[in-house]
Amino acid sequence: MSVRTPDPNPGWLPEFALDETRARVPILYVEAVPVRVDALGQVESIGILLRGSSTTGVMSRTLVSGRVMHGESVREALIRNLLKDLGPTAFPQLPASTVPFSVAEYFPLPGVTPLYDERQHAVALAYIVPVTGECNPRQDALELTWLTPEEAASPAVLDEMEGGRGSLLREALASVGALPR
Amino acid sequence: MSVRTPDPNPGWLPEFALDETRARVPILYVEAVPVRVDALGQVESIGILLRGSSTTGVMSRTLVSGRVMHGESVREALIRNLLKDLGPTAFPQLPASTVPFSVAEYFPLPGVTPLYDERQHAVALAYIVPVTGECNPRQDALELTWLTPEEAASPAVLDEMEGGRGSLLREALASVGALPR
Amino acid sequence: MSVRTPDPNPGWLPEFALDETRARVPILYVEAVPVRVDALGQVESIGILLRGSSTTGVMSRTLVSGRVMHGESVREALIRNLLKDLGPTAFPQLPASTVPFSVAEYFPLPGVTPLYDERQHAVALAYIVPVTGECNPRQDALELTWLTPEEAASPAVLDEMEGGRGSLLREALASVGALPR
Amino acid sequence: MSVRTPDPNPGWLPEFALDETRARVPILYVEAVPVRVDALGQVESIGILLRGSSTTGVMSRTLVSGRVMHGESVREALIRNLLKDLGPTAFPQLPASTVPFSVAEYFPLPGVTPLYDERQHAVALAYIVPVTGECNPRQDALELTWLTPEEAASPAVLDEMEGGRGSLLREALASVGALPR
Repeated sequence: MSVRTPDPNPGWLPEFALDETRARVPILYVEAVPVRVDALGQVESIGILLRGSSTTGVMSRTLVSGRVMHGESVREALIRNLLKDLGPTAFPQLPASTVPFSVAEYFPLPGVTPLYDERQHAVALAYIVPVTGECNPRQDALELTWLTPEEAASPAVLDEMEGGRGSLLREALASVGALPR
Repeated sequence: MSVRTPDPNPGWLPEFALDETRARVPILYVEAVPVRVDALGQVESIGILLRGSSTTGVMSRTLVSGRVMHGESVREALIRNLLKDLGPTAFPQLPASTVPFSVAEYFPLPGVTPLYDERQHAVALAYIVPVTGECNPRQDALELTWLTPEEAASPAVLDEMEGGRGSLLREALASVGALPR
Repeated sequence: MSVRTPDPNPGWLPEFALDETRARVPILYVEAVPVRVDALGQVESIGILLRGSSTTGVMSRTLVSGRVMHGESVREALIRNLLKDLGPTAFPQLPASTVPFSVAEYFPLPGVTPLYDERQHAVALAYIVPVTGECNPRQDALELTWLTPEEAASPAVLDEMEGGRGSLLREALASVGALPR
Repeated sequence: MSVRTPDPNPGWLPEFALDETRARVPILYVEAVPVRVDALGQVESIGILLRGSSTTGVMSRTLVSGRVMHGESVREALIRNLLKDLGPTAFPQLPASTVPFSVAEYFPLPGVTPLYDERQHAVALAYIVPVTGECNPRQDALELTWLTPEEAASPAVLDEMEGGRGSLLREALASVGALPR
């Protein structure tokens, strides 16, 4: 599927080129909500990433997320970012269809839309992804916690989600019939 | 999820009662297209059931299909019919959402709509279901064959599908970006 | 599309036959959330039906809802019930696809699932339907109120929804990116 | 919804900057399949754009398509491109949800994937959009023809679609239950 030239870092951009590009076009992302499902496919728990800032010490929560690189397919970007954030033994089950449950639009100014990203205008294709293996984030500052739908939808958790992703998380829960009252 | 009374044959109906009911209301079905997917979630092959008529000897092809019983949830009906048609070691991965890729409407007269079922007016919720295990249909007259998208979409196969399900199979392929030219 | 015989009351069932059928199979419904959208398609307000009980005087809220009759297509059932509940000048814009935003499962016992219907086991295909005309419910006891997403998602409204439909209404709002915090 | 600065040509890029950007990241597009629907929402005809090359005289067919500009929402990009290609009196009915029927991935090399775009790696969110008004493409070289599903799915038409969009058109037809045999 990929048409990448055999570049050692395909699609990668130096910082100045990425900054320049972010000022010109919306940047395409994929985003994934990792879930554990029971034998009937019903969502039992949701994997939320916990990130500690090394400078401020403030904790924030987020979803699996990353850019689609130049020459990379949406499926390739999805699996690459899942492996990056959940580790090589997560065994994510990618959806048979690339139609997302939501198209998440992030604008640079907070308050204009529920979702924002001060770095850029980003558009993310968001997917629910069941994982069956063990998850071990490879980055030191990252931890994965499994929450029940009730815990995930609690105001305490939603408010800690980066970039207003609490609204995206609620859409994810609603799309699988797991949004609690 | 189920609210079944502990009936030994829950939701089961004697033949006369089923016939009477079929003349009164549309009957709700679930239908599943079993697929094998690669590591990126892309559909590689499609499982089609081959049924030999014991009386006529004519072969026909079909999908996993069955009624939703009274008191049974859609997910329960889906797993029950998958196990019935694919055997206990198929390990189907039920979707996290019960939204189908298509609502298939079968009317009793062939020719009026692409889909028909001479026994009844039936409405089926149709799902793509990846299976990871070994499939062994439990009924003697049934055999499962794995076809590539190209084979599955060939006129020879589509024409053999029971009740006009060739059109439903093509919708299934299109919904996962696997409909060949 | 319909294959109805020219019955004066097609699909209609006498009370005893309907009761008998309800004890045998899940009954198929369609359900619609009428919405007003702006020029960009964004949902601005949601039409909720207000029903006053003639005997108890208690008010309850509900969505457009009705059975799919024998021989009737899902689209025909949808337009018939929209016209019944919103009147002949509502001008509903039926979706191009019959794939619902949710499959709503109602069981007879409250508390088992969020949705319940004491009369029966019902399965409803639920759709968002923009309406552009004037809505005048034909039944005396029925009134339509247009609520903003914020009003519709308020606990006061959600709690008044019949059969636990507050959860379905929240799924509807989430599916169009209009679920407020 | 927009967070555009009051730039006279918001999101517009000079040719050299666009070329540079196209070599760095996938470019986000929206794509629309204009349709006429009957009172039940069923698709009756599909609007295909016919483009005559001024230099070669060769005719090609395409869908409504255009970039999502920096600072522009998906809905804004959709309406802007619909008005650009269909004229101001088309009265497109934008979908209530921004979830596309397909995520169309175009790579620069023909043959690698069904869809290709020699200028760039592009990812398009594709929507079915009913239009109720009169369509008059504003560009001289463009003409809109309304085809039945049977005509649109004919090999002659599919083969003339730019960038392999015949496969996307077939997915569009399948998603609304209008893909003919």
